[in-house]
Amino acid sequence: MPQNIYDNDDFFADYSHLRDTQSGLNEVLEQPALKSLLPPLDGRDVLELGCGMGQFAAWCAAQKAASVLGVDISAKMLERARRENAHPAITYRQEPLETLTLPAESYDLVVSSLALHYLEDYAGLVRRVQEWLRPGGVFVYSVEHPIATARNPMGAWQKNERGEKIGWLVDDYGDEGPREHDWFVAGVVKYHRKLETLINELISAGLMVERLSEPEALPSAVALRPSLAEQRRLPPFLLVRSRRPQDGV
Amino acid sequence: MPQNIYDNDDFFADYSHLRDTQSGLNEVLEQPALKSLLPPLDGRDVLELGCGMGQFAAWCAAQKAASVLGVDISAKMLERARRENAHPAITYRQEPLETLTLPAESYDLVVSSLALHYLEDYAGLVRRVQEWLRPGGVFVYSVEHPIATARNPMGAWQKNERGEKIGWLVDDYGDEGPREHDWFVAGVVKYHRKLETLINELISAGLMVERLSEPEALPSAVALRPSLAEQRRLPPFLLVRSRRPQDGV
Repeated sequence: MPQNIYDNDDFFADYSHLRDTQSGLNEVLEQPALKSLLPPLDGRDVLELGCGMGQFAAWCAAQKAASVLGVDISAKMLERARRENAHPAITYRQEPLETLTLPAESYDLVVSSLALHYLEDYAGLVRRVQEWLRPGGVFVYSVEHPIATARNPMGAWQKNERGEKIGWLVDDYGDEGPREHDWFVAGVVKYHRKLETLINELISAGLMVERLSEPEALPSAVALRPSLAEQRRLPPFLLVRSRRPQDGV
Repeated sequence: MPQNIYDNDDFFADYSHLRDTQSGLNEVLEQPALKSLLPPLDGRDVLELGCGMGQFAAWCAAQKAASVLGVDISAKMLERARRENAHPAITYRQEPLETLTLPAESYDLVVSSLALHYLEDYAGLVRRVQEWLRPGGVFVYSVEHPIATARNPMGAWQKNERGEKIGWLVDDYGDEGPREHDWFVAGVVKYHRKLETLINELISAGLMVERLSEPEALPSAVALRPSLAEQRRLPPFLLVRSRRPQDGV
């Protein structure tokens, strides 16, 4: 059954606070990297997989996207999206990504921000995304980095006797599958996948890989918040831009 | 100055022994993965960057490659290559990869096995490989995995109080550059590069990424040599197949 952690009351309260304070890695690291990988949105049809509270959908609308369809499994998230990030160009739809069906060749851009690691069937989703894209259309996503998700249970900084971080533990890399992880609540499940799986499934589905990104905090951000220097030591996110070729494959 | 560790007498003696006993990870993990990524070689012109003792060049000749040019910086390695792996289709040439120049559009396949992490200028080499390839030609290489090379000094298994390995330490991932490493002799230098650098430089040079591989030991090999199970815990190698498009880019 698709996981819907975002409709857990405790999780939602803490998660909302994180987003509202703009204090997470999403805001300083992942969103700037994601946006830097996007094509121009003016007049384009955009599909967002895992749209949450609609901040990114609203940003797309502000970039003059012709339409934005934001899909999410969580009723609570979409309630906030409809309240806070409504726009005539945006439609929000509650549905698990696992069962989402859409007309073929209907989108110029499919985006997913930190959602695909919750899905068990990555290859199946990628094949459907390829169908939903128009020829020449672009698929950009971010996920937690395989280095970060490998260890089961999910890795952690190792510390020396003085409590200083001496490195992040990687283990179990070859064992793809679920990882339980405590994040605001116990037992959030994320799926670890090898890098070769993330990339090869895109190519097998007929998409061309155009760009990878392992973003780090800029020195200016680290100066304001020294803890961000950790993101240079271990990349928390991996972003990939791929494209459906113009002439089909 | 290009590093030529293979002409160090102590290193060469130990390295030769490792290769002669076929006991390294190259033989059980890297070479099978590399060969699985290759196109058919029959009648093709092959360039090998870092050919060492010529075992792979000889294998290409046995696959009926029309020609094989094996390039290596090490006189000692090439002496053994010429003695043990001579073949009418093979030419060996002593030269650092850093200064190698070759005629444009002359090779159907460029291969490099565990050599590129010794080079400081990866992007420059990739651009030259793209020129050396015929349209439709393939570039396949293996390097030490960025997970393995990240920490400075190069990472190591962390052990618990009972001496059991509990994970591999990753750190300094964002700091690309040299890593000193003791391997038979002290101070072997390898260059750590982020995954995004490895992949994006290929694409920037005009090559299409076709396949990644993070090989693991097969269960049959682990049954014979239990220590190989470690390669499921941490991928030691990353392999990439890319292609120069038929129509140019």
